[in-house]
Amino acid sequence: MNDQKPVLAILGGTGKEGPGLALRWAHAGYPLIIGSRQAEKAQATAAEINAQLGIDTVRGMENSEAARLADLAVLTVVQSAQLEALQSVREVLQGKILVDATARVDFRDPRPPAPPAAARLAQDVLGPGVRVVAAFQNVPAHALKKDLGGTIPTDVLVCSDDVGAAQQVIELAKAVGMRAYYAGGLDNAVVVEGLTALLISINKHYGAKTASIGISGI
Amino acid sequence: MNDQKPVLAILGGTGKEGPGLALRWAHAGYPLIIGSRQAEKAQATAAEINAQLGIDTVRGMENSEAARLADLAVLTVVQSAQLEALQSVREVLQGKILVDATARVDFRDPRPPAPPAAARLAQDVLGPGVRVVAAFQNVPAHALKKDLGGTIPTDVLVCSDDVGAAQQVIELAKAVGMRAYYAGGLDNAVVVEGLTALLISINKHYGAKTASIGISGI
Repeated sequence: MNDQKPVLAILGGTGKEGPGLALRWAHAGYPLIIGSRQAEKAQATAAEINAQLGIDTVRGMENSEAARLADLAVLTVVQSAQLEALQSVREVLQGKILVDATARVDFRDPRPPAPPAAARLAQDVLGPGVRVVAAFQNVPAHALKKDLGGTIPTDVLVCSDDVGAAQQVIELAKAVGMRAYYAGGLDNAVVVEGLTALLISINKHYGAKTASIGISGI
Repeated sequence: MNDQKPVLAILGGTGKEGPGLALRWAHAGYPLIIGSRQAEKAQATAAEINAQLGIDTVRGMENSEAARLADLAVLTVVQSAQLEALQSVREVLQGKILVDATARVDFRDPRPPAPPAAARLAQDVLGPGVRVVAAFQNVPAHALKKDLGGTIPTDVLVCSDDVGAAQQVIELAKAVGMRAYYAGGLDNAVVVEGLTALLISINKHYGAKTASIGISGI
C-alpha cells in the first residue's frame, strides 16, 4: 500500500492508449484499476499488466465501479465513446479529478478540431464538482510499452482551469518518465488535440512514426 | 546579385516580427524589400537594416510595389491588418508564393482561434493563382535580432496545400538558422496559430519569456 500515491482508474483502459499508461503507472507503484464498459475485458487487461510486471495488484472492473474506487480517473476512450463514458461516471467522480486524453482527430483524415476542446465537453458533462484536466492526447501508444525505466520521447501539455489539479497530473506524467508543462486553461486543450493532426501529417510526409512535440526555453 | 536566391518582400515589414526576419534574410544574402502601407516607414526600416549590416541593398516601399517586385512575399502584419494588406497585393502576387505569418491570438487574453486558419483566409482572398504557405507564426521577435550567425531556438511548422511551395519556405527558414518541418495542409495552420496561445500561457505560468516548440522523433 502506498501512503501517498492516489488510486488511479484508467477508464477505457483496454483500448490503444490506456494499457500503456496503466502499465507505466503500475510499474511506478500507483494503485491501479483498469476500467472498461465490460468488466471481463478490464480484468483481462489487468491480468496482462500483472503478468508483465510480476505483480497481482492491478484490478479490472466496469468503468463506473473503477471510477468510484479511484482518487483520480484518466479517460482514454476514442472520441465516439467519450460522452457515454463521461455520463456513466458523472456521479462517482464528484470531488475528484478527471484527466481527459480525448483528441478529436481521425488518423485517416487528420484535421484540426474546432473549439470547444473535448475536455471542455467533459467539464460541462461532469459539472463544477469535478476538476477536469486535459493531458496525454499525443502520447504515442507504442512508446509506452517498451523500456519501462526509460523516458517517453514527448512532452505532455497539461491544460486545466484548476492549476492545482494540473500540477497533480504533471507529477503523474513525471513519475513515468515524461516531461510535462502547465499550458493554460482547459480551452487551450483544443490546440493539443490539433497537434495530433500535425504530428500525423509530419509522420506521413517524412515517412516517420514517432514525430513528437517538445517545449524548450523555460 | 544572387543568381539563385529569390527576391523577398516583407509586407508589413515595419512591425514587430517583420524587421527581424528581414534582417536575417538580408544577412543571408537574399535580395530584400521592406513593404509597408507607408513608403516612408518602409524606407526607414530598410535604412536601419542596411546600417546594421553595413550594406545598401535593402529597399523600402509601399506594400503593393514591394510585392510586385518580389518573387516571394512574407506577410507579417497584425491580424486586424491582414485582410486589407492581402487585398492590396492580390493582383501583383498572382503566380507567386505568399507566406502568411498571421496568428489570431491576443497577447493579453490568449485563446485558441477557431478554424479556418488565417492562412486559409489568405488563400481565399488571393485565389488559386497564389500559392499560400503558413509559417513563422510563433517565431519570437526578440530572438531574431541577436546573434545573427546563430540558430533561432524554435522549430517552424510549415503548412501549405502546395508541398513544393512549402519546401521553398523550409529552405528560407533553414537559411537563417531555424529548423523547419512540413506539417501538412493549410488547414493545419490553425493549430500553429493556437500554439501561440499555449506558449504565452506557458511563459506566464513559469515566469519565462522564451518558451518555444520543437519537433523530434523524425
